[in-house]
Amino acid sequence: MPTTEPDGLSATLRLAMDLIRRPSVTPDDAGCQALMIERLERLGFRIERLPFGDVENFWAMRGHHGPILAFAGHTDVVPSGPETQWQYPPFEPRIDSQGMLCGRGAADMKGSLAAMITAVERFIDAHPDHPGRLAFLITSDEEGPAVDGTRAVVEHLREANERLDYCIVGEPSSTRYIGDMIKNGRRGSLGGVLRVQGIQGHVAYPQLARNPIHETAPALDALTREHWDDGNAFFPATSLQISNIRAGTGATNVIPGELEAVFNFRYSTEVTHEQLKERTHRLLDAHGLDYHLDWTLNGEPFLTAEGELVDAALAGVEAVTGRRPTLSTAGGTSDGRFIATLGAQVVELGPLNTTIHKIDERVRAADLDRLSDIYVAILERLFLKECL
Amino acid sequence: MPTTEPDGLSATLRLAMDLIRRPSVTPDDAGCQALMIERLERLGFRIERLPFGDVENFWAMRGHHGPILAFAGHTDVVPSGPETQWQYPPFEPRIDSQGMLCGRGAADMKGSLAAMITAVERFIDAHPDHPGRLAFLITSDEEGPAVDGTRAVVEHLREANERLDYCIVGEPSSTRYIGDMIKNGRRGSLGGVLRVQGIQGHVAYPQLARNPIHETAPALDALTREHWDDGNAFFPATSLQISNIRAGTGATNVIPGELEAVFNFRYSTEVTHEQLKERTHRLLDAHGLDYHLDWTLNGEPFLTAEGELVDAALAGVEAVTGRRPTLSTAGGTSDGRFIATLGAQVVELGPLNTTIHKIDERVRAADLDRLSDIYVAILERLFLKECL
Repeated sequence: MPTTEPDGLSATLRLAMDLIRRPSVTPDDAGCQALMIERLERLGFRIERLPFGDVENFWAMRGHHGPILAFAGHTDVVPSGPETQWQYPPFEPRIDSQGMLCGRGAADMKGSLAAMITAVERFIDAHPDHPGRLAFLITSDEEGPAVDGTRAVVEHLREANERLDYCIVGEPSSTRYIGDMIKNGRRGSLGGVLRVQGIQGHVAYPQLARNPIHETAPALDALTREHWDDGNAFFPATSLQISNIRAGTGATNVIPGELEAVFNFRYSTEVTHEQLKERTHRLLDAHGLDYHLDWTLNGEPFLTAEGELVDAALAGVEAVTGRRPTLSTAGGTSDGRFIATLGAQVVELGPLNTTIHKIDERVRAADLDRLSDIYVAILERLFLKECL
Repeated sequence: MPTTEPDGLSATLRLAMDLIRRPSVTPDDAGCQALMIERLERLGFRIERLPFGDVENFWAMRGHHGPILAFAGHTDVVPSGPETQWQYPPFEPRIDSQGMLCGRGAADMKGSLAAMITAVERFIDAHPDHPGRLAFLITSDEEGPAVDGTRAVVEHLREANERLDYCIVGEPSSTRYIGDMIKNGRRGSLGGVLRVQGIQGHVAYPQLARNPIHETAPALDALTREHWDDGNAFFPATSLQISNIRAGTGATNVIPGELEAVFNFRYSTEVTHEQLKERTHRLLDAHGLDYHLDWTLNGEPFLTAEGELVDAALAGVEAVTGRRPTLSTAGGTSDGRFIATLGAQVVELGPLNTTIHKIDERVRAADLDRLSDIYVAILERLFLKECL
């Protein structure tokens, strides 16, 4: 059972509210990490502060031997938008009459951070000499460019030859009730910006111009019809979406000299980003375009198809909620993509994502206590063989 | 021979300079028409001032019986652009050491207006009782929206049951030497704005969205490949150009909800705008698009394939320059499109168009005297059978 504080709030809710009260709009940490570090130091964690640029990060570890499980998450939140549109001020957390904890970050992901801390406190209190090691990987740049955050910390760990066995990312993965869905992977994301060169001219003299809209239309059509793969048991088929297209001077009588199209692959583990690039170039070349193409690899796909962590997560949730979660790789990208490159098993497990990034972000207060219970249940299943 | 004024300038050049000195930036007439009207009234023309909106227009006629030849033109000019970039101030006309008349409107088309006036003065002076009728249709809105100008005057004439047999538009039609090209028609211009509706969404969830870029690409490809007609002896084949295309929120991870494409037909007399519209709709419908299409008919094609006016213009130019002109329907639109709807034979004949709409607009001074000669020669061939 979670500890209840003198004010009647559970330790998890109290910490979540203390974190929400710090207006850590990305990439500002606003003192959230100091609060977490204070709690972790008290538990015997060794803290390594890893600021990069204007981003605060830290890596914390407790124990000296055995497999490492890291909790990962971010203290930064997306901007609140117009505060007057909020029912309650976004950085003045409260629990409303419906039992909802309201405030920016309640769901994404200060609620998860609080649940991680209290879960670790309770687990260590009950099993001070547990085998294995516990760690925290916390950043203040997940909602922003995500360059000086988890990505940089992971590079630092790689250079320091740190191993990581298991990682639980606190992203809000649940959809209808707490723990109904666990993300055990994500598709890769590969972006392209295509610039096709034509020759500008007057619409009355098309023979003196080369219209890049006319030349690109069949190539884009072929790109969108291409069958990239069939996906597999864990991933849907790779999909390409053209998100932006732009050509023209605004004048109705001018043939434009250039066209720009922006597209994005969400891809499965059945293809590599090298293959996607090569096939795209081959297709564009076949259409005889005079083009330039800039690629951005936002994240390679990762997958924890099976293993101790997935087993412990499925069993832990079921033990607490009575219902078995679904595994899914759907949705956008997350910092899990960086952590997976260390060879760790990675799952994402957090509260409901219904209100994230929206006005009046909120989460059921009881769900955070429940989430702390789930994290404890997973720790027990991973580290205390006798509990299973 | 043209009259020479006391200052050594021909009457045509003197009038051209008086017109250029009036800074009639579209749609401002700046007193140009008053100058022309004064000269025409002196010749016995009956003047009908036809202002529409802020546009000055007039219709002038002399004579009571027989076929009507109208000179048509505009007193407005395009803006000068930065005056400091001009060699000479744009509204202070002068003849430079190369014999070029410099100033905004020298070529487009105050030089032509001056040549028309002096041609009519000389023709009437020599043949005061010539058969047929002479007319002028002058506007100050050809370079602007062209709605309250020639178009409106033509509607007024149509309602008044005015007939028009022949019309010479003073647009600068020459390309290398004065009179080398006569425009005896223009292609039609039909514009379309296509808006395709999709369903906005996240690129990670394409199954919840409908990407209008993906849906439109094959339709645009089919439109640009369509063979609309073969043209004919006077017109090149009808051509379609997509001038602008736009879709996307700017974000790389959002599937846009709408696409807009702007296109323009330049079409021959082998198809009608109704046929083009119907074929375009049929093609878009075949691609199952959810679309809205707005049409703008900028001008129907017109053609004076043959007849007394073309014969007189070809012969008149040849008599003055010693070289036979080429007939052409190439290039943009002109006010001839409106006048042709009265059933008139229409040609465009004016000075070289090399510098029109540019900094340092200029025209060979001697060409304007020559143009006045050409207009006289055409009048003689149209009205004085004994001259031929």
